Order: sequence, then C-alpha cells, then structure tokens
Amino acid sequence: MVRRNDQRRAALVDAAIEVLAREGARGLTFRAVDAEAGVPVGTASNYFSHRDDLLIQTGARVYERLQPDPSEFERLRAAERDRELYRQAMHGVVGRVGGFRAGYLALLELRLEATRRPGLRTLLTEQVRGDLEANIAYHEASRLPGDALTVKLLYLALNWLIVEQLTLPDVLSRSEREQLVDAAVERLMGEWPDAPDTP
Amino acid sequence: MVRRNDQRRAALVDAAIEVLAREGARGLTFRAVDAEAGVPVGTASNYFSHRDDLLIQTGARVYERLQPDPSEFERLRAAERDRELYRQAMHGVVGRVGGFRAGYLALLELRLEATRRPGLRTLLTEQVRGDLEANIAYHEASRLPGDALTVKLLYLALNWLIVEQLTLPDVLSRSEREQLVDAAVERLMGEWPDAPDTP
Repeated sequence: MVRRNDQRRAALVDAAIEVLAREGARGLTFRAVDAEAGVPVGTASNYFSHRDDLLIQTGARVYERLQPDPSEFERLRAAERDRELYRQAMHGVVGRVGGFRAGYLALLELRLEATRRPGLRTLLTEQVRGDLEANIAYHEASRLPGDALTVKLLYLALNWLIVEQLTLPDVLSRSEREQLVDAAVERLMGEWPDAPDTP
Repeated sequence: MVRRNDQRRAALVDAAIEVLAREGARGLTFRAVDAEAGVPVGTASNYFSHRDDLLIQTGARVYERLQPDPSEFERLRAAERDRELYRQAMHGVVGRVGGFRAGYLALLELRLEATRRPGLRTLLTEQVRGDLEANIAYHEASRLPGDALTVKLLYLALNWLIVEQLTLPDVLSRSEREQLVDAAVERLMGEWPDAPDTP
C-alpha cells in the first residue's frame, strides 16, 4: 500500500533530515516529519512501511545530497598533478560536507541509532564502506601520491574535524581548522612528483 | 536543597552515562536515571538542580573515568624516546577510550545535545579544549618528534577511528583499525631521533 510519488517522498525524507538534526533520533516520528514537511498528518506513514524504512532512506538521501557536482569532479581531476589544487579540493570537501549541517548531524544521529538497530547498522555500514571504497578506488586510479592508508587517514581526520566544527565549534578556531586541513594533506599524502607548482 | 553525598552522586552520574548511551539524550530523564541506579524515584532530582546540571556532570565524569592511571603515564614517559613504545601507547589510548563504550557514546550524545543547549556547549568546549591543550603541552615538554599539529591530527584521526569502531564496527575490520593506528603514528610524527630500536 506504499504510494509512489518520488517528489513527495524526497520532500518527506528531507524533512526527516531536519527533524533528526534538530530533535535527535528519538524525536523522529512520522507525525514530526509530517509537520516539518507541512503535509497532512498520516502522509509519511503512507510512504514508509515502518520507522526503520524512513531512517534508512534518510541515510541514503544524505549521501545522495552530499555527492559533489560534476564541476567538482573536474576540479579534482585537475588536482591530480598539482598539490595546491589538491589542497583546495580537500578544503572544498570539508566545506561542502560541513556546510550541509543538518545532513551531517542527521548522519551522526543515525550512527548512534544504529547501535540500537541492527538493520539500520547493516545498511549504514554498506553505505559508508561503499563510499570509502569508491574513494580508495578513485585515488588508486589517479596519479595522486599516497595510498589506500592515506585515503583512510584523511577520511578519519576530516570527519572528526567536521564533528568538531558542527558540535563544539569553539574547540578549534576557523583558522586552526583550515591549518589542520593543510597539514593533513601535507603530512598524509607524502611526496608529490615534480609538478608545475613545485619549486 | 541539593544534598551532599559524593558516592551516591557518582553512582547517579554513572547511571546517567549508561542511560545516555543506551537511550540517547532524549531518553535521559531523572526517572530513567533513578531506575538505572536502582534508587527510589525522586533521588536524582535531589542531587541535580536541573537536567543541564546532570548533563554537564555526566560529561565531566566521562573525562574523569577516561583519565589514564599512573602506570600508563609511566609507559608514555618511557615511550618518549622509542617509536615502538609510542606506537604501543597510542594503541593503548584507543583501546582504553574505545573500551569505555558507554562513556564514549554518551559523549557523542552530549555533543549532539550541545547543538541544542548553549550552556552545555560552553562547558563541553572548555573540557575538550582543556584536554587537547594538556596533550599539546605534554607533547611539547617531551622529547617526542612532531609538533602541536601532530597532536591535533592524531586527536582527529583517532577519535573518528573510535566512532567507527563503536557505531559501525564492520566498516573497518579490527586489523584495518590497528593498521590505521600504526600508520597515523608513523606518518604524523615525522622523523624520530636515533633511538635504541632504530636501525
């Protein structure tokens, strides 16, 4: 009896992201999603068979909305032989992910909720692992210095940097955070081959 | 009218850690804490003037319980000139912090709750910043290679490693996580001076 209406479904999932970020996982009810989306009570329960279904689609939607647009892929490709461009690209990633505040906070809520819901944990694990593996494959196919461990260490460091920025933004100042992105790239990538910007 | 009884208070705060980790921030009520601690309904409200007070004391208590014992400080001191001992010490930190599962998950819940409560945010910020600064001061007073950025980058990478282990433990296997601790130490510390174990 689940109705098909992709646009309405996306609007409900987007509303769920806002509710999760603002109210936490326990605040995420069908009724709260209906209210956030400005639709009649009972709408969300027509679109999602149960609450886990909504949670899982919310996680997938955050990843979908975090996908870089094609111009950013272009920039990354250009950065493959240029340390300065790569550094800028990493600042771009942190800016884009950290800039989607509700989405990132919703993912943290989902991770905590996953400690209580094995089904959600399985699906989030696939999503996060798939994303990490795609990044490693991209890196290995590129001419970038560093290896799979570089990608994983950048993933670790930049994720907690974003946690810090979004949850306790005064622990590290903006300039400290920017310096940390620079240092992470510098120290984790290793030696670059000769490139136009290398003296 | 706040009663003084340090042992009882500590037991209540420890119960709050368990409730936070298991039920999330919205599940943390005085009543839930009373039930978790196995004390009569109404006890927690005699010890804490309001819910924020309980949240703040819970954060402080996690940090208190995460303090290494003196033997670990001894080990770290010995590690100051020995890369292999330092590597082991970092595995020890990850094991100790990640091993206090409820405490770490409670801290994540508190961070998310801090996005909604400015008073909690101020106090957690002081706590986290103080802890980070103590680590930097310790590092700078030691004979360890690396600098303040090294300490901050290790802090970032190891924190997200623990998030991964506690929330989605199958994203990175145990051996991948161990390899990442090794690689973080190796790549972020920089060159070690000649030491007994260095060829």
